[in-house]
Amino acid sequence: MLCLSDHFVLSVLWIEHRDGGLRPMDADQLREHAHKMVDFIADYYKNIENFPVLSQVEPGYLSRMLPDSAPNHPESLEDIFNDISSKILPGVTHWQSPNYFAYFPSNSSIAGFLGEMLSAGLNIVGFSWITSPAATELEMIVLDWLAKLLKLPGYFLSGGQGGGVIQGTASEAVLVVLLAARDKMLRTVGKNALEKLVVYASDQTHSALQKACQIGGIQPENCRLLETDSTSNYALSPGVLCEAIAHDIAIGLIPFFLCATVGTTSSTAVDPLLPLGKIAKSNGMWFHVDAAYAGSACVCPEYRHYIDGVEEADSFNMNAHKWFLTNFDCSALWIKDRNALAQSLSTNPEFLKNKASQANMVVDYKDLQIPLGRRFRSLKLWMVLRLYGIENLQCYIRNHIKLAQQFEVLVAQDLRFEIVTPRIFSLVCFRLLPSQNSKDHGNELNHHLLDTVNSTGKVFLSHTVLSGKYILRFAVGAPLTEERHVTAAWKVLEDEASALLRSL
Amino acid sequence: MLCLSDHFVLSVLWIEHRDGGLRPMDADQLREHAHKMVDFIADYYKNIENFPVLSQVEPGYLSRMLPDSAPNHPESLEDIFNDISSKILPGVTHWQSPNYFAYFPSNSSIAGFLGEMLSAGLNIVGFSWITSPAATELEMIVLDWLAKLLKLPGYFLSGGQGGGVIQGTASEAVLVVLLAARDKMLRTVGKNALEKLVVYASDQTHSALQKACQIGGIQPENCRLLETDSTSNYALSPGVLCEAIAHDIAIGLIPFFLCATVGTTSSTAVDPLLPLGKIAKSNGMWFHVDAAYAGSACVCPEYRHYIDGVEEADSFNMNAHKWFLTNFDCSALWIKDRNALAQSLSTNPEFLKNKASQANMVVDYKDLQIPLGRRFRSLKLWMVLRLYGIENLQCYIRNHIKLAQQFEVLVAQDLRFEIVTPRIFSLVCFRLLPSQNSKDHGNELNHHLLDTVNSTGKVFLSHTVLSGKYILRFAVGAPLTEERHVTAAWKVLEDEASALLRSL
Repeated sequence: MLCLSDHFVLSVLWIEHRDGGLRPMDADQLREHAHKMVDFIADYYKNIENFPVLSQVEPGYLSRMLPDSAPNHPESLEDIFNDISSKILPGVTHWQSPNYFAYFPSNSSIAGFLGEMLSAGLNIVGFSWITSPAATELEMIVLDWLAKLLKLPGYFLSGGQGGGVIQGTASEAVLVVLLAARDKMLRTVGKNALEKLVVYASDQTHSALQKACQIGGIQPENCRLLETDSTSNYALSPGVLCEAIAHDIAIGLIPFFLCATVGTTSSTAVDPLLPLGKIAKSNGMWFHVDAAYAGSACVCPEYRHYIDGVEEADSFNMNAHKWFLTNFDCSALWIKDRNALAQSLSTNPEFLKNKASQANMVVDYKDLQIPLGRRFRSLKLWMVLRLYGIENLQCYIRNHIKLAQQFEVLVAQDLRFEIVTPRIFSLVCFRLLPSQNSKDHGNELNHHLLDTVNSTGKVFLSHTVLSGKYILRFAVGAPLTEERHVTAAWKVLEDEASALLRSL
Repeated sequence: MLCLSDHFVLSVLWIEHRDGGLRPMDADQLREHAHKMVDFIADYYKNIENFPVLSQVEPGYLSRMLPDSAPNHPESLEDIFNDISSKILPGVTHWQSPNYFAYFPSNSSIAGFLGEMLSAGLNIVGFSWITSPAATELEMIVLDWLAKLLKLPGYFLSGGQGGGVIQGTASEAVLVVLLAARDKMLRTVGKNALEKLVVYASDQTHSALQKACQIGGIQPENCRLLETDSTSNYALSPGVLCEAIAHDIAIGLIPFFLCATVGTTSSTAVDPLLPLGKIAKSNGMWFHVDAAYAGSACVCPEYRHYIDGVEEADSFNMNAHKWFLTNFDCSALWIKDRNALAQSLSTNPEFLKNKASQANMVVDYKDLQIPLGRRFRSLKLWMVLRLYGIENLQCYIRNHIKLAQQFEVLVAQDLRFEIVTPRIFSLVCFRLLPSQNSKDHGNELNHHLLDTVNSTGKVFLSHTVLSGKYILRFAVGAPLTEERHVTAAWKVLEDEASALLRSL
C-alpha cells in the first residue's frame, strides 16, 4: 500500500501531501501543462496542410508501435507529445484540414474549442437541474436563441410544453423521438401492437432511422424507405407517401412516424415539409424533420425557405457540430412536447430525487435523452453564438456555398465530367462520364478515380450511389477552406482523371 | 450577402481573407485565446473551495440574467469570461470541489483534461476505422491495457472475437448489450416473442437497466428487479434468482438477460458474480456485469476479488470517468462477441463504404454503439494511464478508500449516528438515529439534516433509501479531496445534527 513518490515530482503531475495521499489535480501544474497542450494544438493547425488529409496507414499499424500494457510508472508529457506526433497523427484523418471535402464537415472553431475546454475543466455531470443549474438553464437559453435564429415555431421554445435539448448526434435525436412516438401510439392502440407500427421516410433518409427502428423493436419490414429518383431530385413525393400509408392502413398496419430530411446525406435533397407534414398530421403520425446538415444554412434568410413547413413538425434536429462551428458533439433537437419524451425516457430512482425535481419546477435533461450523464455542451454553442455573432455566422455559411458554386462551375466546364444532381447547399455531386461502351456505367471508373485522388493525400472526398450510379461527393465546409483549396482540389481531380483516362 | 468585417478584427476571432471569406479558425488566435482559457480554468481550480459546492440558485435564475436572443455582432472573450464568473459559476454545482461527496465522483485530472483538449483540437469523428485509424486502434489498445490491469478474461481482449469499446455512459453500455442479447434470443425463439423476454437484476440495480428495457421494448412487467435486504448487504441472492427463473420458465416466459452489479449506486453492494454467472449460463442468458463505480477499485490486487466470476460474463462495464481520473465521458465496455453487438447495431449505407471496412480488415466502432459519430475519447484514457502509471493510480484509489474508512470511524464514534451498511469501497452509508417515538423511523429527520448540510454550501452529500430508511451517502472520490476535507465535512454534519436535535 506504499505510494511511490515521497517528494514533489512535478514532471509526472503528482504531488505527495502531508497526509500521504497523492493528488492528480493541481492548479499550477494544470496551468503549466495545459499551456503546453495549447501550443501543441496551435502548432497542429499551423501545419495542418502538411499532413495527408486521409490517413494512409494500414490496419493494425498502431499496435506494432505501442507497448502491450500500461506503464507501472509515470511517463512524461514530452514522451506523450512525441508519440502523438510520430504515432498518432499519422493515423489521423484530418477533418479540420482545409482540403477535407468528405462526408459532411465536422467544424472545429476557436470558440467551440474554448467551450470544450471550459466544459472539460468544470467537468460537471448535468443529468438533473440540481447537479448544475447553469448547465440546464444555459442549454434551454441557447437553444431558444438558435430556434429564433432558425425561425422555428414558437412551440419549440422552452417557455411552454416544448423546448430544445442537446443530443450527442442526429442518430440519438431520431432515436429518442421515434421511441416517444412509438410509446405514444402504443398507449393509444395497446402495448401489444408493436408489430403493426410502421415508419416512413425516403430511401435517401439517413441510416440512423433504420438503426433507431432496430433498437426500438420496429419490425424491419415495417420500415418503409420510399423510393425517390432524379425526377424529384431525390426528394420524397407526398403522393408516394399517401399511397404507402393508405395501403398499410388497408392491411391493418398502424402508421406512426414520418421522418423528412432537409439536406440528405447523399445529395442534400430536400423533402417538401409542408405537404408531408400535413399528411402525417391527418394520419395521427409523429412528424420528425432531420436537418442535421442543412439546418445550419437556414440561419440565412435566403435559405430559410427550405424548412418552410417545419410548423407541422413534432420535432426538428440540426447538428451544430457539422457546419455551425461548434465542436463535436452538439446535435440540437427541438420537440413540441417534452413530456412525450419523458414518458419514454424518464426514470426516477430514489438516489436522484431532489426538491426542485420533485416539485416539477425544473427540466431534468436526463429524461429527454438515452444516457443519464451529460456534459456541459451548451457552453460551446453559447460561445460560438456570442464570439462570432449572427451576421458572421451567416457569412460563414454563405462563403462555403459560394465556394461550392465555384467548384460546380469548374466541374461543369470540363466536359469529361457531369454534375449529377443540382447543387443546393455546399455539396457538389459529380462524376467522370464513362465511355459509351462502359459495362457498369462508369462506376468502376469513378470508384478508381476516388481511390486515386484520396491516396494522393492532397484532398479527401467521399462517394455515394444514386440510381445505381457511383458518384463523387465534394462537400465544402471545413473552417479553414478557402478558394485556393477548392481550385487546388479540382486540379488534383483533373490530373488524376487525365492519368486514369490515359491508362485505359 | 456582404460580410461585416473588412479588416482584421483580432478580438473577435475573425480574419478576412483576400478572397473575401471569413475564417473562424486561425492558429495564432487559437493560441492567444486558448492560453487565456487555460489561465481561467487554472484560476478556477485555485479558488474552487471558495464556491458553495452545491449551487444555491433558484430555478430560472439564468434567463433573468441573459439576453433573449443571440447577438448580431461579435462579443469579446473578456465579456464571456465576465459572464462565466458572474452568471454561470453561481449556477454550477462543483463536482471537482474537494468538498463534493454526493452521488459518485466524476473525476477530472490534468491528464484527462489534456486528453479532452487534444480530442477537441483534432475534432475528428471516428465512426469508421478509415475516418481516423488512430482513434479506433488506440481505443482497442488502451482498453486492452485496462482489461489486463483489471485481469479480465482473455476473450475480452481485442485479439479475438471480443474487445473493448468506449461508450458515453454506463446507461449506453447496458442498453447496447441488452439489445444484442434481445436480438440474439429473438433469432433463436422467433422475432415475435419479444413480449415473453425477461430481464433479471436486483432491486439495487441502476435505473439505467429499466430505461434500457423501456427503450428495447421489453415489457415493464418482465423486468424482474429481485428483492434484496440487509441480510445479504443488498446483494442479489442466487437462490432468489433461480426461483424467479424457474417460475418464469414454468409460465412460458423466456429469461434472456441478467445484470449483476459490483458496487451498486445506493450502497456499493456487490452481487456474487460466480454463482450468478453460472445460473445465467445454464439458462442460456446473456450475463452483463455493471461495475461502473467499483470497477476502478479492482485495479488494486486487494480489491480484484470483488469481480471474481467475471469470467462467466458476456460483457463487463466500468466508468473510467467516475473514479479513474478520466474526464467525463468515458465508459469502458468489454464484450465477448463483438459480432453480437454489430448484428443489432450495424448499418452499412453506401456513403460509409470503404475498402478497409468492406474487406473486414478493421473494427468500425459505429457498429458497437448507439450513435454514428464518436469523439476520440481514448486519448484521455491513454494519457491518464501513461502520465500517472499503474502504481500511482492504485495509490489514488487506496487513498480514497482510506479517507472513507476514516470518515466511517468518525461516524461510528458518535453514538447519535449509525452506519447503515458495511462500507466496502469509498462510500459510507449512515444516518442520524431517530428518537424512539419517531413515527417515520427518522426519515424526515435525516432528510432535514441533508438539506441543512447541503444548504451551507460547505459540502455536498446525497441520499438513498434502503429497506425504507432514508440514508445519507458520503462518497469520497474527488481528486482534490484530502483528509482535512473529510474531517471538516464531518464537523459540518455534527454541528448541523446538534442544531437540528436541539430544535426538536
